[in-house]
Amino acid sequence: MLAVTILGNNSAIPAFGRHPTAQIVTTADDLLMFDCGEGSQIQILNYRIKRSRINHIFISHLHGDHYFGLIGLLNSFALLGRIQPLHVYGTPALIEVINLQFRLSSTSLPFQFTFHPIEKAGLILDAKSYTVECFPTQHRIECWGFLVREKRQLRKINIEKTAAHNIPTTAFPELQAGADFIETDGTIIKNELLTDENVKAKSYAFCADTIYDETLVPIVQEADLIYHESTYPAALAEKATERFHSTSKQAATIALKANVGRLLIGHFSAKFEHVDQFETEAREVFPKTELAREGVTYLI
Amino acid sequence: MLAVTILGNNSAIPAFGRHPTAQIVTTADDLLMFDCGEGSQIQILNYRIKRSRINHIFISHLHGDHYFGLIGLLNSFALLGRIQPLHVYGTPALIEVINLQFRLSSTSLPFQFTFHPIEKAGLILDAKSYTVECFPTQHRIECWGFLVREKRQLRKINIEKTAAHNIPTTAFPELQAGADFIETDGTIIKNELLTDENVKAKSYAFCADTIYDETLVPIVQEADLIYHESTYPAALAEKATERFHSTSKQAATIALKANVGRLLIGHFSAKFEHVDQFETEAREVFPKTELAREGVTYLI
Repeated sequence: MLAVTILGNNSAIPAFGRHPTAQIVTTADDLLMFDCGEGSQIQILNYRIKRSRINHIFISHLHGDHYFGLIGLLNSFALLGRIQPLHVYGTPALIEVINLQFRLSSTSLPFQFTFHPIEKAGLILDAKSYTVECFPTQHRIECWGFLVREKRQLRKINIEKTAAHNIPTTAFPELQAGADFIETDGTIIKNELLTDENVKAKSYAFCADTIYDETLVPIVQEADLIYHESTYPAALAEKATERFHSTSKQAATIALKANVGRLLIGHFSAKFEHVDQFETEAREVFPKTELAREGVTYLI
Repeated sequence: MLAVTILGNNSAIPAFGRHPTAQIVTTADDLLMFDCGEGSQIQILNYRIKRSRINHIFISHLHGDHYFGLIGLLNSFALLGRIQPLHVYGTPALIEVINLQFRLSSTSLPFQFTFHPIEKAGLILDAKSYTVECFPTQHRIECWGFLVREKRQLRKINIEKTAAHNIPTTAFPELQAGADFIETDGTIIKNELLTDENVKAKSYAFCADTIYDETLVPIVQEADLIYHESTYPAALAEKATERFHSTSKQAATIALKANVGRLLIGHFSAKFEHVDQFETEAREVFPKTELAREGVTYLI
């Protein structure tokens, strides 16, 4: 199971109590963080996220509302005496910003810090239970989305059925991997007769900031949940395009075309105090849409 | 009259709902900002500070809890289409941090932005109704405090008395400036017989982060209000010295020796959920001490 907790759902300027972009994805192994707008470390406290468990931080792009909180979070990790290694992923220039500020404050990090420059699409993290891939999105500056996929779970040995067929336990690893069992006389016992399906491996795509772009469709195809920005309501499609952002209906159209399980929309323009209309509009195109609400955890 | 509004009173790490250092000083002409920790722009919204009136921002030093919110505030000013000129004062390296981040995000500021590198103690701003001077404090890295002084107010013409003495209005400017009136026959009419004292010019010193340092005493002598950090309670004086910070009683001792009007203490260590003891301890040395409470405006 994966889960996504929203720390910030607003676009460029904090407004109406909404914060800039930041999300925590919970996997079986780690907490991942996608973007880290200003004040994220305070939101982490507000929503009782176990900060020491955040091991990987992914920054989509270098507009301030997506990363101005990173330096403060790293600084606090240093002051708190963190010892767990930390990995940060982003465009190569991000490390310049971090290094400059830590040099000026004479800060040295007490934990192992690894910066992974993102230079091309593909696999960027291969963990025990999941992978993370990055993909480019079309925005005013270089920008990356991220796709988390749980690894396929092994099938579960059915103890009664394997006993009934007198299967030796030495064969279990192959059965778990999906193989049929072959008796010494050549008889084949189908895997489904000996094992049960495990929970399905889930996937989540964080599509960052992006203009409406159908090249995203094959990338997020069939994902269980995607987050797609919806900076503007449908009526402001022209403005959205001008600014390399998307509308509610455009986000929903990507979700529909990609046949995803569910859609989360966020990155709402600071001009709008009330954002319910974004949901209403998106649901006209893709009913399984929800607003990314701050503090809410969406289970996948 | 001056006034100080506290936006953040905590040291290095946000904790217990307390924010990193930031203060707004209201003068007759402008709002001044002293330090700008992460999340200051959100605190500005929370406490209904008119952000477009902030014309001068002073950064004491480049530890993150004193300036990580500056880039976000500038970025928001840009996005909001600010047109008023803005002046930022700080150690020369601060502009490198700002320039690097704006270059990476292709941000250009729509307003006139002037950076004033601080390189020596003295007058750094001479405004219509007040001046700002900077002075060095002793901290782990280069650090500056700031002293705001209202300019002396002109004396008020007493209409009844000037009429009784038949003083021509052409003489009023000199009377306001404090001169006596000299009749054509050489008779001197004392200024005090013709004018009234105006409100006293007030002063405020922001002493930034500092070890206990008596060289501050002559600098803030007789100020109406000073803010002095009190990172630690009195019992942790040794730790305070090691880290170039001060205790409650040390802050109060500076206030006492400098014979200031009142003392505000803040920059509380994130280890302490309750900070009342800081006030109790400081008051044993200097009774006119108050905790710098977030959201509270202290009139001077």
